[in-house]
Amino acid sequence: MLHLRIAGALALATSAMTLLASTASAEPGMFTFNNFPSAAVGEKYGFTPTAQWLDRVRQAAVKVGAGCSGGFVSPEGLVITNHHCARACVEQLSTKEKDLMATGFVAADHAQERKCPQLEVSQLVEMTDVTDQIAKAVDGKSGADLAAAQRAAQASLEKDCATASDIRCNVVTLYQGGRYELYKYKHYDDLRLVLAPEAAIAFFGGDPDNYEFPRYDVDMTLLRAYENDKPARTPVYFPLAKTGPAEGELTFGVGNPGVTQRGLTTAQLELQRDVLIPQLVAHLAEKRGILREYARRGAEQTRTAEQVLFGVENLLKRANGQYRTLIRTSLLDEKRKDEQQIRTKVDDAATAGAWDAVAEIVRKQESLNRRAAILEGVQGITGFEGDLFAYARLLVRAAEERPKPNAERLAEYSETGWPATERRITAAVPVARELEGERLAWSLSKIREWLSPDDPVVRALFGKEAPEEVAKRLVAGTKLADPAARAALLKGGKAAIDASNDPMIRFAVLADPYSRAARKGLETQVTAPLRRLHAQIATARFKIEGTSVPPDATGSLRLSYGAVKGWMEDGQPVPAFTRVGGLYERATGSDPFKLPASWLAAKSALDLNTHMNVAVALDTVGGSSGSPIINKDAQLVALNFDGNRYGTGGTFGNIEALNRSVGVDAAALRAAIGTVYKAPHILREMDAAQPGG
Amino acid sequence: MLHLRIAGALALATSAMTLLASTASAEPGMFTFNNFPSAAVGEKYGFTPTAQWLDRVRQAAVKVGAGCSGGFVSPEGLVITNHHCARACVEQLSTKEKDLMATGFVAADHAQERKCPQLEVSQLVEMTDVTDQIAKAVDGKSGADLAAAQRAAQASLEKDCATASDIRCNVVTLYQGGRYELYKYKHYDDLRLVLAPEAAIAFFGGDPDNYEFPRYDVDMTLLRAYENDKPARTPVYFPLAKTGPAEGELTFGVGNPGVTQRGLTTAQLELQRDVLIPQLVAHLAEKRGILREYARRGAEQTRTAEQVLFGVENLLKRANGQYRTLIRTSLLDEKRKDEQQIRTKVDDAATAGAWDAVAEIVRKQESLNRRAAILEGVQGITGFEGDLFAYARLLVRAAEERPKPNAERLAEYSETGWPATERRITAAVPVARELEGERLAWSLSKIREWLSPDDPVVRALFGKEAPEEVAKRLVAGTKLADPAARAALLKGGKAAIDASNDPMIRFAVLADPYSRAARKGLETQVTAPLRRLHAQIATARFKIEGTSVPPDATGSLRLSYGAVKGWMEDGQPVPAFTRVGGLYERATGSDPFKLPASWLAAKSALDLNTHMNVAVALDTVGGSSGSPIINKDAQLVALNFDGNRYGTGGTFGNIEALNRSVGVDAAALRAAIGTVYKAPHILREMDAAQPGG
Repeated sequence: MLHLRIAGALALATSAMTLLASTASAEPGMFTFNNFPSAAVGEKYGFTPTAQWLDRVRQAAVKVGAGCSGGFVSPEGLVITNHHCARACVEQLSTKEKDLMATGFVAADHAQERKCPQLEVSQLVEMTDVTDQIAKAVDGKSGADLAAAQRAAQASLEKDCATASDIRCNVVTLYQGGRYELYKYKHYDDLRLVLAPEAAIAFFGGDPDNYEFPRYDVDMTLLRAYENDKPARTPVYFPLAKTGPAEGELTFGVGNPGVTQRGLTTAQLELQRDVLIPQLVAHLAEKRGILREYARRGAEQTRTAEQVLFGVENLLKRANGQYRTLIRTSLLDEKRKDEQQIRTKVDDAATAGAWDAVAEIVRKQESLNRRAAILEGVQGITGFEGDLFAYARLLVRAAEERPKPNAERLAEYSETGWPATERRITAAVPVARELEGERLAWSLSKIREWLSPDDPVVRALFGKEAPEEVAKRLVAGTKLADPAARAALLKGGKAAIDASNDPMIRFAVLADPYSRAARKGLETQVTAPLRRLHAQIATARFKIEGTSVPPDATGSLRLSYGAVKGWMEDGQPVPAFTRVGGLYERATGSDPFKLPASWLAAKSALDLNTHMNVAVALDTVGGSSGSPIINKDAQLVALNFDGNRYGTGGTFGNIEALNRSVGVDAAALRAAIGTVYKAPHILREMDAAQPGG
Repeated sequence: MLHLRIAGALALATSAMTLLASTASAEPGMFTFNNFPSAAVGEKYGFTPTAQWLDRVRQAAVKVGAGCSGGFVSPEGLVITNHHCARACVEQLSTKEKDLMATGFVAADHAQERKCPQLEVSQLVEMTDVTDQIAKAVDGKSGADLAAAQRAAQASLEKDCATASDIRCNVVTLYQGGRYELYKYKHYDDLRLVLAPEAAIAFFGGDPDNYEFPRYDVDMTLLRAYENDKPARTPVYFPLAKTGPAEGELTFGVGNPGVTQRGLTTAQLELQRDVLIPQLVAHLAEKRGILREYARRGAEQTRTAEQVLFGVENLLKRANGQYRTLIRTSLLDEKRKDEQQIRTKVDDAATAGAWDAVAEIVRKQESLNRRAAILEGVQGITGFEGDLFAYARLLVRAAEERPKPNAERLAEYSETGWPATERRITAAVPVARELEGERLAWSLSKIREWLSPDDPVVRALFGKEAPEEVAKRLVAGTKLADPAARAALLKGGKAAIDASNDPMIRFAVLADPYSRAARKGLETQVTAPLRRLHAQIATARFKIEGTSVPPDATGSLRLSYGAVKGWMEDGQPVPAFTRVGGLYERATGSDPFKLPASWLAAKSALDLNTHMNVAVALDTVGGSSGSPIINKDAQLVALNFDGNRYGTGGTFGNIEALNRSVGVDAAALRAAIGTVYKAPHILREMDAAQPGG
């Protein structure tokens, strides 16, 4: 989510530039719970969140999977999140005969609730500042030693913290390494599907409407957390408000915004603009073409390709929007001025040189990044597409990494990372073999394209074969689609991998040294030194700015605040609300503007004036999807699922006058659950008195 | 051709920047025949081309189709050009059963030569300066009046000049309107295929090797021009040299470079960098994905998609290379300095303001360009993909335009443009209906994406249908694949169009007002005013620089000169030649590195030391494909087919130290024709004594 569409954005360049000149630095921010500006909120809105209020909100919130947000909405473990956050589950529970994406799903009772193969949620229960411990561990070290020492210190802190099987801990890096905090989570790994609308209404308007407003989506899914095969007890939750928020009302967004890069230097922003984003856009655009055309082979192909295509289109729109922000607004100029100012105020020579040192690294980042992206993978790019290769790589690496001391392992195989990795390997997820073959054939050809036919890894991987022939052979011959085969290889460890003649395993073994080298090259020559330099810069900024500026988002729990309001678009006001009636007016009968039968049937029973979606001036980014938007009574007034077209640039900086989060209004949630999906039992559960309230 | 690969280009950024600082303005240039710097060539190389020499070279050269070059190579109408320039013919002569792209083609005698359905060549026979006539016609006019007056004056000049049915004339705009010349061509529209190698050797290395060097391609095809069903008499031609050129030897490239934009202001170059090129790259990348995945449906789909895919990949590589030149070299900085300098030297206020006026237009160009691109089409982008819609639009417009006075018609329907347009409508070209459906479905969806679901044209075109449904209905229902149906509609004129219930015709009628409006918006608000401003700037430059700088390429005949030489790549020399032995070493047995049977069989009969491809410091760009590279005796020493990775940026400026044209060496041409394709009769014809020599 949060991405600026290319279409239509151009007319706005001028007005956006005017606005930005004065607002680029006005960032309400995504605050940590232990550094929330309650006093400032109180001053502006007349409501001052107390420590108790903050604790309660934090406990009712959950992180969903690796990249989404959600919240408990009943005392019996009921979790609300976006449909697109639980989409993998809905698809994995679907079959050729019964496609839950098309039909939706409602469980009449607990017995009908169906277990999601891979989904998990976690609740942040404690935060501890460990900056000193990390500093002590790396004191006097540099280069690879420093990185290893830091990894070891983090791993040790995380391990000591994880005192029970349902407790997960990890060290969160804040202010680019200026602060470290140990976050302790209670973990739920038995999630069951309770209610999912049809994809057609969850994502009404599809890619054309994505990152746009006005909007008419019910991007919501209800899950239930189980413990010991029983609904989890969750006494602290967000009650569903009777109605949605009013225009101008103060709201809070609580969720796990994934990544912002507001601390990037201008040299880094220029690399984003000139190289990294255009490279990503071109790659995703071609991948989108592959998937769209593959989906046209037939209904089953459409179904199996849908989830991958959805992810690609979403990333693509986001990347395009970020690019627009960098070339079309004054954000970069503002950052340049700000950087100039800070640099004049820095007094020690080492830190004063940090910006130039960053620029120096940026010069070699491009080729290292390119190699790492295609051989090891970054978001949206990999030369090894698909689940079958992913299984092979995970198994090959598990065999190699797991026997190592914890601190020396790659992160995904450390004690902290392993449970999720193990689960990924063993979960029973259907494999669409034909699609796997197409994806792998294409992506292997990109390795040759990105690195040239003469690169040693290209020669090693393909020899006298074409990449497409290799893909065909691997996908046809591998047994890794079978969870039992994977479990056996996992259990057998290195001996089993060495003895395996599974072609995908052998191919992963062949590729691994090259991929590891590419990952290491980027990590040691770019990521680690940049981390150190940014810590220096962040420390210098602390001295000058204090902690008034919140740290960059890192996928951990944050709280933002802002009022419900529209914005000015090219001189015209965009209202803050859409209404249910607008949904019916916009429907054409054709995908992605086709209404499901349930909504057509329910029309006469619905109040067409009901607020449908709502725009709120909340600072959110991707990862905030599924964030509860709550009022001062900590009631759920809306469910965040997207941002408007100005949202995507939020990665680099927030523009309060333009940037809006978009949510499903509480009134629409009630109408959907109660009237359209005829599940009053769920509303009753959500309306139960809150014990901790 | 002429495009910088992304892969591998990064390591070169530093050295390229160093080099560029001193060489960006050193442009040998692509000169017109009536303003060739013979004295400068003589001074540098000891050979001074005479007027007679220039006349002879001009007469032996031909323009091939709309976008390629070639030359006569025998007195009997034999024409040499690139395989990729005659590719459409080779494919159109292929069938499901006999794919000439795969098998190659050799005619044993004239009787076996097969007529190309659409190909035509033309020979430049006369050039006349008409700047004064045009100036007189537009004197005192402005805006739409000026544009109309200029079109009328050009049309009238062209009509008066075309004194015979095989004579075509057109007014060529030089120096962005600083000069106008009337070019008179002798036209050949009966071209027959004589010899075509297999695509696998013509384009050995495929997309990975495109715009790269070292290279091993035989990108050549021989055609024969016929007049009155007999081989044309072409007494002036380029004899094939006995061997290729020597290292350091002076050569000339004669051809029709398509478009350079070396006169763009920095505001325009920034629009290219920030908007136009990234937009094109993203569009082509997705289209490439569509076509690649479609081709994987089967052998027949691979065959039918090949030509479109080839064009897309070639354009894509070129666009990527141009982008690289703009972000990675100092070219833009050099241009900025140059612009600064010229502006200080300009003395009249009107011209001094021209640069700012250009920048002002650039600000509104983006949205106008976007709309025109998707609704009317620009190179590489259209919302209406495929031949079937193209036929419908041509027919709909012909009915409307042809009855108008000549000067008021759209260019393609004027007396000058009409013969090619009519031929395009009526030529018997096979239509791949399944592919047409996929292309149209995709591109129609892009109209909605680019313009938003709420745009009036989107509502008008699709109503309650999805774009994909519309495409399916149109392609299934149209009769326009039948040349007879098209001919009937053409003959029937407006009445026939009005009465037609062919769904594609009705759709084209529906779209036409929107497309015309978009075209007109761009033309009147951007293209025409920019033309006037650039004429002003060019005139100012004349006063300061004289005519030492050649005009931008405009697809008309040019002559460039330069020595055979390699270049320095990241501190290492790249030799100027590859050898036949290298071809066999590079072959893997898999496409695109798979050798055809003919070359495998001929290996033992070939001298592996024979020069295969050659790099020459000639300034060429796309459109130069098929350019004869000749020595001072006007013998063909190589056939240009590509540039190295630095060539694509040649659109914006030539970097002599790096930019190389790549050609098939004459020795390789001899080996291919004589030894591999066993056609000594063709070599004998080419070796006949030259009457005019």
